[in-house]
Amino acid sequence: MEKTDGFIALNEKTLVDYIKATPTLCSILGNKFEELQVKEVGDGNLNFVYIVTGDSGSLVIKQALPYIRCIGESWPMTKERAYFEALALKEHGRLCPNHVPEVYHFDRPMSLIGMRYVEPPHIILRKGLIAGVEYPLLADHMSEYMARTLFFTSLLYRSTAEHRQSVAEYCGNLELCRLTEQVVFSDPYKESQYNRWTSPYLDRDAEAVRQDNLLKLEVAELKSMFCERAQALIHGDLHTGSIMVACDSTQVIDPEFAVYGPMGFDIGAFLGNLFLAFFAQDGHSDQGNDRKTYKEWILRAIEDTWNLFQKKFTALWDEHKDGSGEAYLSAVYNSSELLLLVQQRYMKNLFHDSLGFGAAKMIRRIVGVAHVEDFESIHDDSKRAYCEHRALEFARLLLKERRGFQSINQVVLAIRDLNLDKVS
Amino acid sequence: MEKTDGFIALNEKTLVDYIKATPTLCSILGNKFEELQVKEVGDGNLNFVYIVTGDSGSLVIKQALPYIRCIGESWPMTKERAYFEALALKEHGRLCPNHVPEVYHFDRPMSLIGMRYVEPPHIILRKGLIAGVEYPLLADHMSEYMARTLFFTSLLYRSTAEHRQSVAEYCGNLELCRLTEQVVFSDPYKESQYNRWTSPYLDRDAEAVRQDNLLKLEVAELKSMFCERAQALIHGDLHTGSIMVACDSTQVIDPEFAVYGPMGFDIGAFLGNLFLAFFAQDGHSDQGNDRKTYKEWILRAIEDTWNLFQKKFTALWDEHKDGSGEAYLSAVYNSSELLLLVQQRYMKNLFHDSLGFGAAKMIRRIVGVAHVEDFESIHDDSKRAYCEHRALEFARLLLKERRGFQSINQVVLAIRDLNLDKVS
Ligand SMILES: Nc1ncnc2c1ncn2[C@@H]1O[C@H](COP(=O)(O)OP(=O)(O)O)[C@@H](O)[C@H]1O
Ligand SMILES: Nc1ncnc2c1ncn2[C@@H]1O[C@H](COP(=O)(O)OP(=O)(O)O)[C@@H](O)[C@H]1O
Ligand SMILES: [Mg+2]
Ligand SMILES: [Mg+2]
Ligand SMILES: [Mg+2]
Ligand SMILES: [Mg+2]
Ligand SMILES: [Mg+2]
Repeated sequence: MEKTDGFIALNEKTLVDYIKATPTLCSILGNKFEELQVKEVGDGNLNFVYIVTGDSGSLVIKQALPYIRCIGESWPMTKERAYFEALALKEHGRLCPNHVPEVYHFDRPMSLIGMRYVEPPHIILRKGLIAGVEYPLLADHMSEYMARTLFFTSLLYRSTAEHRQSVAEYCGNLELCRLTEQVVFSDPYKESQYNRWTSPYLDRDAEAVRQDNLLKLEVAELKSMFCERAQALIHGDLHTGSIMVACDSTQVIDPEFAVYGPMGFDIGAFLGNLFLAFFAQDGHSDQGNDRKTYKEWILRAIEDTWNLFQKKFTALWDEHKDGSGEAYLSAVYNSSELLLLVQQRYMKNLFHDSLGFGAAKMIRRIVGVAHVEDFESIHDDSKRAYCEHRALEFARLLLKERRGFQSINQVVLAIRDLNLDKVS
Repeated sequence: MEKTDGFIALNEKTLVDYIKATPTLCSILGNKFEELQVKEVGDGNLNFVYIVTGDSGSLVIKQALPYIRCIGESWPMTKERAYFEALALKEHGRLCPNHVPEVYHFDRPMSLIGMRYVEPPHIILRKGLIAGVEYPLLADHMSEYMARTLFFTSLLYRSTAEHRQSVAEYCGNLELCRLTEQVVFSDPYKESQYNRWTSPYLDRDAEAVRQDNLLKLEVAELKSMFCERAQALIHGDLHTGSIMVACDSTQVIDPEFAVYGPMGFDIGAFLGNLFLAFFAQDGHSDQGNDRKTYKEWILRAIEDTWNLFQKKFTALWDEHKDGSGEAYLSAVYNSSELLLLVQQRYMKNLFHDSLGFGAAKMIRRIVGVAHVEDFESIHDDSKRAYCEHRALEFARLLLKERRGFQSINQVVLAIRDLNLDKVS
């Protein structure tokens, strides 16, 4: 147990001592420690997560180590990411308490967050999607989370002074941003030691991605937007593995990639991962369940998410149109006709950004370094390759042709066209 | 002479004492002070500028006071702007020493910069344009300045980590940005106590601007881009009053509005102010000089500036394509065909941004708070109104239709169409 700059990497044992020495955490646990149970459950790629349960309380401790967990000390990564995660959890929690776990404690030198244990029956959404579980409130909850966190941290609600101050603060999270830049926007489009795919089946697909000039032209635009455009405080890693669900509850965790960036990056992450879940279903179908109905549910969840998001986001805009937001001063945008015009333009651009980022997120999960369990859990290589191939084809189309789609319904229709043989 | 936090507002007398106590400045002046002459020459809107000449040397001292000079203490404005001005002068000076005066000294508590005296025959470009003086090297020099300062502070040259650090630093210049947001992007499009125009001639024009929904739709997009998009370190106030010229020299001063923003904001400021100069010429013509030839020269300077900028900027890009810039990694953009494709897209977008910002800069100088000497020096109200009206019509067209222009030549042709009666 070595200590530098106040940092100690904890384990299941030493964590108990840490908790005992931390009054806030003790009180959450009911101040009784005979039966304290600690279990490391981190299945994510980066950090250590401990579930701590006492007789009359529970909590989760998440600690960042100065490297990427799933790769090891050979890929160093600032543990300051925990600072930005705590900051974003608190800010997003304030804006959308229903869908963000409460932060009890943050220890910056230790890069350690104490937060609410999102207890069973909550599971990681990705696992639910693989198991074929429908979440009737998912679209409603996620559209609420995205509408509120994005709207209230944008210039539609904020003054430009507040905005620039917050932007400056989150610029500090640059190492995590660099990871995104590399694994989402660069590596999949070039030869990289980190890339992998279902070989040999997808060898030509991976090659085709690297040779697709129009695709790379569009990816360049998205990468620049990610690096340059501080539109709102984004979660930065909003895939289905960062969402915990029960039938009546949705909790968003793990915003360590938080930064001021384009809103479409979050919306696209969520939608793109639902698309991945959709394309993986054919790999999970069996004689008992052909997954037809479930695929329909996923497509509906995608449509509902965007449509509800659009509705809630513009409702917030309408509600606060005379407020503090400085992008569209009410004295300038002073008629309902004009407000409608600017909202339509804004939402159209945001829609196309979201489709673009969503597609980029799909591509990187098929030919990049980090894959998704949706596909990885399909053990038959050729079956998995088939699903991945179709997802990749769709993503490439979406990225290049996104500006041609006028509504999410049209996108879903395009998927149905690809999937005629399987869906209908 | 009151002192708070180390700040003292100097005057022609007390400045001498300050200089005597500052070795760097003394040595520039040759360490002899019997004949020291100090003259306040600030004709700008914000600050105090002193020319200091000794027997064997000279320099300029610029001091920011905690309010806007031309309005007075009723419009407070952080004197920290001098810090960002000094920072940008040094950075841009490093990147383009031929066209930026050297900084000798910066005193942060005093908000005071000591810099090279850009000596006669240099005059402020705007005055030269009013006088009808041709500057054969202007387009060459300004395209050089813009290409170098913008390219080298963008992600075409920089790593994203360096970029985010610099972005964060300049976020601190938020008060000056707010001034731009208000006077460029908001006030001209609403009723504001600060707005003024040549009344009654332009009453209907000013009204039309406030009622033009499509114009306001486009301005919203530009304002958001200004607030959100950290594309490069921009000067932030690059009008013809921030440029000093002699026939063989061009020096850019006064970057106190420096911030990471859209490149098109600088390019547009310069081009937009050349357009203003063009439209003002009819107000300066007299029997001795109908200004026809001079108007042609201005149009040529506009064309040359953009075309040379485009050439130099892409030449820098080609030169550094395998370098440290992280927007377009050479391993991804790995053929000359693809590089050409991304460059064409980039330059097309930058061109349209520049036209948009240029038009916005024109509009605000005609119906907003701060006007330009090009028009103000036309003493006949109806003549001035005529010139302003034509400039305003052109600017509104340019702002709304900018994406329809494929080249700067087409823009100049559009001006000629408007000006057939006068030019040809
Ligand atoms: N607040 C929480 N409540 C319950 N489980 C959690 C909580 N936070 C994380 N987990 C579990 O730990 C796993 C990894 O957490 P995550 O925050 O995603 O870490 P990483 O940053 O390493 O991806 C999650 O998939 C989830 O199973
Ligand atoms: N380095 C310089 N050399 C010569 N004259 C200068 C210099 N800097 C400023 N001036 C003169 O002072 C005037 C105001 O300077 P400027 O930097 O534009 O101040 P402001 O920020 O108030 O607009 C300029 O128009 C120019 O005439
Ligand atoms: Mg995670
Ligand atoms: Mg994580
Ligand atoms: Mg000035
Ligand atoms: Mg000025
Ligand atoms: Mg100035």
